[in-house]
Amino acid sequence: MAAASPHSRMSDVADRAGVSLSTVSRALRGAPGVAPEVRERVQRAAAELSYVVSRNASGLVTGATGRVAVLVPFLQPWFFGVALAGIGTRLRQADLDMLVYQVGDMRGVEEYLGELPLRRNVDAVIALSLDLDEREIAVLDEVGVPVVFVSQRIPERASVFIDNAAAARSATRHLLNLGHTSIAFVQSADSTGFEWSSAERVNGYREAMAEAGVRPQVLVGESGPRGGALAAGELLSRAEPPTAIFAESDDVAMGVLRVLQRSGLAVPEVMSVLGFDNHDMAELLDLSTVAQPVSEMGAVAARLAVEAVADPAAVPHVELATNLLVRGSTAGPRAASRLVGGNE
Amino acid sequence: MAAASPHSRMSDVADRAGVSLSTVSRALRGAPGVAPEVRERVQRAAAELSYVVSRNASGLVTGATGRVAVLVPFLQPWFFGVALAGIGTRLRQADLDMLVYQVGDMRGVEEYLGELPLRRNVDAVIALSLDLDEREIAVLDEVGVPVVFVSQRIPERASVFIDNAAAARSATRHLLNLGHTSIAFVQSADSTGFEWSSAERVNGYREAMAEAGVRPQVLVGESGPRGGALAAGELLSRAEPPTAIFAESDDVAMGVLRVLQRSGLAVPEVMSVLGFDNHDMAELLDLSTVAQPVSEMGAVAARLAVEAVADPAAVPHVELATNLLVRGSTAGPRAASRLVGGNE
Repeated sequence: MAAASPHSRMSDVADRAGVSLSTVSRALRGAPGVAPEVRERVQRAAAELSYVVSRNASGLVTGATGRVAVLVPFLQPWFFGVALAGIGTRLRQADLDMLVYQVGDMRGVEEYLGELPLRRNVDAVIALSLDLDEREIAVLDEVGVPVVFVSQRIPERASVFIDNAAAARSATRHLLNLGHTSIAFVQSADSTGFEWSSAERVNGYREAMAEAGVRPQVLVGESGPRGGALAAGELLSRAEPPTAIFAESDDVAMGVLRVLQRSGLAVPEVMSVLGFDNHDMAELLDLSTVAQPVSEMGAVAARLAVEAVADPAAVPHVELATNLLVRGSTAGPRAASRLVGGNE
Repeated sequence: MAAASPHSRMSDVADRAGVSLSTVSRALRGAPGVAPEVRERVQRAAAELSYVVSRNASGLVTGATGRVAVLVPFLQPWFFGVALAGIGTRLRQADLDMLVYQVGDMRGVEEYLGELPLRRNVDAVIALSLDLDEREIAVLDEVGVPVVFVSQRIPERASVFIDNAAAARSATRHLLNLGHTSIAFVQSADSTGFEWSSAERVNGYREAMAEAGVRPQVLVGESGPRGGALAAGELLSRAEPPTAIFAESDDVAMGVLRVLQRSGLAVPEVMSVLGFDNHDMAELLDLSTVAQPVSEMGAVAARLAVEAVADPAAVPHVELATNLLVRGSTAGPRAASRLVGGNE
């Protein structure tokens, strides 16, 4: 293989081969989905330009920088603290340091990726609940930094995730099996970084409702407890409020619970409430929810990052199990008139 | 000043001058509390050994590594996510990367400090709610890494903090002014890293109670909501339960609230509950509390770290303001018999 040339870039290879950056990336990594003749053309272009695939690999096998970057949209939400704890602990075991970047939104991601080629200060990147597009992933490829996705499944990329759709489907069936026929789903529209899991959860809810032949009711609103409180207000002011509310996340469910409590509407007698996540406050609030293993997800992500440094061509997908935790906030529906009559 | 010698260490200077490491550190930094003749002896020893104070400063002024380490006991609690967000945002502005180490306990701190001389991979360390002892601080001095303490006031060290005692005194007076004469304080014994603020808050409570001539009642238990729930159980099983509970933190207060809710004891009619922190769930729970500016504290810590890199001799102390937020969980006491009678 030709010697490394610091001047040839992946984009030069793409130009010469007449393909996109992501195709170059896939072809050189040996990922599936690239036609043999395209792969050959890319490899020839890379050889002619002295662009060396193992430029990436060479530094990486040894863990050149000893650091892994974790990109998070925000640091405040409960989810990220728990996931970072899992990542950090596992990285320490591999003697790797954890750099944390709070990118905030996609502009922050662009800024980070824009600086990365100059910095080259990490061996791998862990993207925590962030939807990177093909172009952004190509930047990471160009710098030779493998990326691991957490909490979302990305084809041809190392990732660790849960089956959000299946979990939401089961959870919805739990409410249907209790006898509920009017079940609202509260979705957050502005939950930056969580778009993938949010969409999957809605899908699972819709599937279970369709299976049961029951009309779905999806409310799209703000994220967090505030979003849940607003959604509860809207649902309670309907001519026929639902008898159960399935909230996209426990954060949202907490806002729902609060409004019901203030209104004197008993949970689960008047209204069942179901969350998703098993937030560290969920047990205290006796909230039925879908538990996902956030800390383990972080630990697996760190392991995948370590493995990716050794072998960037490997793109394992790890699916972790969820559990429906039935607590005191879900039960069978009572007569709809009770909602009007209140909490006697 | 003599040229830098990579072989002379701060401990050599301490041996030659016949003083402790921390005295060497203080003397060479020009910090107060060192007798003039001791300072002179240390400076002579340093010169004879070609130990150069500016060995530390030289690399640091330019921000040699471009990284700042943040040591946190744990990553899960709400407080740390918010503080890290404040730190990370401010460090980005200064073009510094944030390394995060979850040290867990003091053994983790020792491990980190033990490796630091080999790593030398940061320009400054921010200790987030961690009590480092003199010996541990001396290790940082020896490596030439300035340290900034967050959420605790350390003499002769850069630190950013609130006046926990004054805030707890005011908050206790709020309950006394409402007419409460039986006010319990719930303290967490196992809140690793928060010992300083915990002790200060108890002191403030005790002072206000003494001023008012009222007997203090301090319960020491577990941390978090679980600790609050256990404490509430104990208080409610007394012959004469208090009419108000002041919890060391909102986390603890949430456990108290939950037990009261389950027991059908109305807040604030039967029992007033007061927290501390303004946790992001506090508003939702309508919890009266002492708000501390956690994100701003992080931002100030990052600024102090940047300044310490430029001038390690500076040891600014920044005190941030707190605010008592009176919400719906505190009100005047009702007849004690109501507690027995329940929630009518």
